[in-house]
Amino acid sequence: MNAENLRLLPPRRRWSPGAAHFVQLEGPFGMRQGGSLAAVELAYETWGTLSPTRDNVLLLCTGLSPRAHARSSADDPSPGWWEAMIGPGQAIDTDRYFVICFNNLGGCFGSTGPASFDPATGAPYRLSFPVLTIEDVAAAFKQGLADLGITRLAAVVGPSLGGMTALAIALSLPVERLAVISSAARALPFAIAIHSLQREAIRSDPGWQGGYYDDRSLPATGMRLARKIGMLSYRSAEEWRGRFGRERLAGWGGEAFGPEFEVEGYLEHHASKFVDAFDANCYLYLSRAMDLFDLAEHGGSLEKAAARITAKAALVIGVTTDILFPVDQQRCLADVLRSTGRPVEYAELTSLQGHDAFLVDIEAFAPLLSDFLSRPLA
Amino acid sequence: MNAENLRLLPPRRRWSPGAAHFVQLEGPFGMRQGGSLAAVELAYETWGTLSPTRDNVLLLCTGLSPRAHARSSADDPSPGWWEAMIGPGQAIDTDRYFVICFNNLGGCFGSTGPASFDPATGAPYRLSFPVLTIEDVAAAFKQGLADLGITRLAAVVGPSLGGMTALAIALSLPVERLAVISSAARALPFAIAIHSLQREAIRSDPGWQGGYYDDRSLPATGMRLARKIGMLSYRSAEEWRGRFGRERLAGWGGEAFGPEFEVEGYLEHHASKFVDAFDANCYLYLSRAMDLFDLAEHGGSLEKAAARITAKAALVIGVTTDILFPVDQQRCLADVLRSTGRPVEYAELTSLQGHDAFLVDIEAFAPLLSDFLSRPLA
Repeated sequence: MNAENLRLLPPRRRWSPGAAHFVQLEGPFGMRQGGSLAAVELAYETWGTLSPTRDNVLLLCTGLSPRAHARSSADDPSPGWWEAMIGPGQAIDTDRYFVICFNNLGGCFGSTGPASFDPATGAPYRLSFPVLTIEDVAAAFKQGLADLGITRLAAVVGPSLGGMTALAIALSLPVERLAVISSAARALPFAIAIHSLQREAIRSDPGWQGGYYDDRSLPATGMRLARKIGMLSYRSAEEWRGRFGRERLAGWGGEAFGPEFEVEGYLEHHASKFVDAFDANCYLYLSRAMDLFDLAEHGGSLEKAAARITAKAALVIGVTTDILFPVDQQRCLADVLRSTGRPVEYAELTSLQGHDAFLVDIEAFAPLLSDFLSRPLA
Repeated sequence: MNAENLRLLPPRRRWSPGAAHFVQLEGPFGMRQGGSLAAVELAYETWGTLSPTRDNVLLLCTGLSPRAHARSSADDPSPGWWEAMIGPGQAIDTDRYFVICFNNLGGCFGSTGPASFDPATGAPYRLSFPVLTIEDVAAAFKQGLADLGITRLAAVVGPSLGGMTALAIALSLPVERLAVISSAARALPFAIAIHSLQREAIRSDPGWQGGYYDDRSLPATGMRLARKIGMLSYRSAEEWRGRFGRERLAGWGGEAFGPEFEVEGYLEHHASKFVDAFDANCYLYLSRAMDLFDLAEHGGSLEKAAARITAKAALVIGVTTDILFPVDQQRCLADVLRSTGRPVEYAELTSLQGHDAFLVDIEAFAPLLSDFLSRPLA
């Protein structure tokens, strides 16, 4: 790595691996829409104990941005992104399951992505990274699991983008239980529009430099705006109304048309945290992967795809205030999964927190997951 | 006007007055949050005939962006923004009413706004334009009407931002009928957030130049993005699903992460049209005016404000797919207006077109308006 490469080093290298392990996949790794990666590395964390017959593996697929650090551990005591959901006696019970969570292929927390160095050039991939699909993410996970000696899953669980990954996994690996949370069988125009505007905000920032930004001129303005556009779809108008009303910010002002209401300060606070925490190009690739996903491509229709899904039982959870993946899409997914005769439980929660409710309203989600994961299969 | 001023001439001057008349208000015009305008000019159009006793005036208040050209006429045969709603025998019946529509104060189609020339400096106001509120817009209309010899209204009708203006008008002028459509008694956090992100998109564009852009470097990127963010809230996910599904664009491509789905092409098409049609600073001022509006400021509560509203009868129309001003806010407005004993009709339409339905679903809106405007007052 020469000085020029160091200069281009993206901020994700500030990330500390913590409790992460790494698995190197045998290359080249072919991508679904063409192109390949000479080498793929996946970061992952695990909780619980792998049974001697390896029949207790629960694969947890993350949303677009989280790390593999879903829960704290001795090696990394910081709280994970689903801390309250996972552990001994918790909904995702580590006394029973060996839980494994990968950082997404295309991500920036240890797994190979657009910010990783291309061994062929010694420079970061940037936009030379091939088009990424959810199926590629799932294929990388499948290969990573195989390299760890795991070829079947007791369960796969995924919220949001992770729900799509879980569906793709269940198409290609024997899976007993499939839980899809606040996700969808495919992205529809409103979700595509939200994602498209987020990408446009990033691409419009002169700091993006056609994808070849460096550490000293991150597309921070575009990333902040992209995050805020996303937040329009992550929570709900009802929640914000209760939290913020028309309260004004204290101690802001001076900037022409700058933040004035509390809700604007809230958006600014979260957006600012995100700029240094996530790589802009990774955001572009992963968000487009969501838009490209359509379960129906696996067989020609949703029903035919459902027939290829290996899961013996499924759970679908939707939230009535979710505008990114509205409940009618999740009802449809449950119906489709049920159409091939497998038992499918569908739950529609009225949590106020919208799309993000699974991260916040643990009390509502945990009993559903717990029941589903502990109930004997028929 | 010297050469330097001509260079700074904003694009709104490309606008052709068509059938517009102009009224010059006597200055200075004091603004609600401080500051004043030395001179105010309002552009307006009228349809129908003013009765000898001037008792048949219907004031139509526009949303954020339309011109005063609500309907075609002999002087300007181009279709107006509410063409199908207004005319002889139409819902807004010009055989009965003398209809008048002003371009908003703060706008860029003939009325004084941030793109107008400040007589004190000979240069456009830009950000030296004082903070604009809905009450200022209403006060300018009131003064404009008075200058035309009109001091009471048979009706005031307003959709969206215009509904807020109609409420403010009904606080300060004797009004018989008040119709508020897809509007609200105040902006709540989700609407504020949408508007705030639109303003941020404009302000983030280097072409905005702190508000001092010129014709040769408009903040086109920011304006496009702002318009698209707005469009997330103007229509509905349901409508887009039916119109676009997951259809791909033909003939696009090449640009990294550029538009790929039909919904993205649709957004791009509408956004591009907007850049040259509207002044960026006007957008900032008018969108903030919506956020600042709170009917409850007129008396200390919504109920006390309602008691000050002069209207003898009111109509409130909401649309179930409107996410900018959801129906519960409009139900609330109807209840509040009813609380002082006046008859209030509330209609909740299931139009697919969301906030913009009043522009499109004329068949659903016209009978309601027609009934309300033609029925004898009790």
